[in-house]
Amino acid sequence: MLELLHAGRRNVDEIWVATDLDDSPVVAEIVDLARARRITLNEVSRRRLDAEATSEAPQGVIARAAPLRPVELEDLIDGDGVPFLLVLDGITDPGNLGALLRTAEGAGVSGVVLPRHRAARITPTVAKAAAGAIEHLRFAQVGGLPAALQTLGEREVWRIGLDGSARDQLFDLKVADEPVALVLGAEGRGLSRLVRERCDQLVSIPIVGNLESLNVAAAGALACYEVVRHRGTV
Amino acid sequence: MLELLHAGRRNVDEIWVATDLDDSPVVAEIVDLARARRITLNEVSRRRLDAEATSEAPQGVIARAAPLRPVELEDLIDGDGVPFLLVLDGITDPGNLGALLRTAEGAGVSGVVLPRHRAARITPTVAKAAAGAIEHLRFAQVGGLPAALQTLGEREVWRIGLDGSARDQLFDLKVADEPVALVLGAEGRGLSRLVRERCDQLVSIPIVGNLESLNVAAAGALACYEVVRHRGTV
Repeated sequence: MLELLHAGRRNVDEIWVATDLDDSPVVAEIVDLARARRITLNEVSRRRLDAEATSEAPQGVIARAAPLRPVELEDLIDGDGVPFLLVLDGITDPGNLGALLRTAEGAGVSGVVLPRHRAARITPTVAKAAAGAIEHLRFAQVGGLPAALQTLGEREVWRIGLDGSARDQLFDLKVADEPVALVLGAEGRGLSRLVRERCDQLVSIPIVGNLESLNVAAAGALACYEVVRHRGTV
Repeated sequence: MLELLHAGRRNVDEIWVATDLDDSPVVAEIVDLARARRITLNEVSRRRLDAEATSEAPQGVIARAAPLRPVELEDLIDGDGVPFLLVLDGITDPGNLGALLRTAEGAGVSGVVLPRHRAARITPTVAKAAAGAIEHLRFAQVGGLPAALQTLGEREVWRIGLDGSARDQLFDLKVADEPVALVLGAEGRGLSRLVRERCDQLVSIPIVGNLESLNVAAAGALACYEVVRHRGTV
């Protein structure tokens, strides 16, 4: 909620606050920001608020805001700075998608590419897991990831896929100032064949223990920050 | 389930398989392993199985196994190899705890230290999120984390706390072959004061975007693999 108001990218129609909500610095800040932006503030009963809420555990404040608008893939490539994209191939768990979006924002990606079908969508539950990241992130929704990766290749974006069976290791990547796209596969089944074939390089994350792979959100954190380290943007 | 049987650390009394379960390589492997270990196999209706299951989305197979046994903190320090511990200060979300345990196992930690109170416990939901990691991990449950950190310090384990406000950066850490303990704080409020004071060094993860911090499971993945990279154990 705070990130929604801070980012200021979406029109917010009104904000509802539960009448039984305790005073807290966060609520005070939300109220201040809403007043500054002349957003209608309504105090409603907790029961009514919970009934209206669309995420699983509303914390006493909800906003009615314009939907998030995806951008075109081309806009992500042509944006400010050298492209640093995160491409998600069919993530199905809302918690994982939310965590990945939060990490992507923290790592300063220039955009996220999501498939339009057969994957978790940016629902209120995902938005909550992303802790406000979606208010700052730019994202594109594409009909097919293989075609999107083809486009990225034609635009000279280096496409790096994470694949547990790859011989090259993530930590040996040589990425510097070139445009890059990190491509992560779905929980369990990994990258689909067509997506894998359109990557320029496949890398794996070394596993020291007994399991076969890391959780996709953990793998995504390591991959995103690998780019951050190489680019020296911090 | 597979990891439970592969690890073989717990006695398994019986395994229930839903009668309507489709054949799959995983189920076949579970059945083979159960037979090899002379574990009683029962086919039961899906309804009965779901009623008995203790995790949220049973996938048609459940096992009755002996409980996981924590070890003493001293056992983690005195185990094989140079200690590499993950200390979790009050993680409350089961999904985060599960993801952290899975990452810790993947990174080859020698053990995890958890508080006995005021934190998520290793429930079936956590075990599921950990994707079998708990079958391989050793963990200690301690009454108080500050005292446990004191003990680690006396045993010359270098205690590294993750703290968003720390000036030193995680990626500049100089850890080589010395015993280390990574200390992660709770979602939102971070390390408690007493825990922070008992760390030898505090480090932060650089944030390029607009958010204040990463999800604790993402931060944990970066921290655990930082040690892996330095140690060259992969």
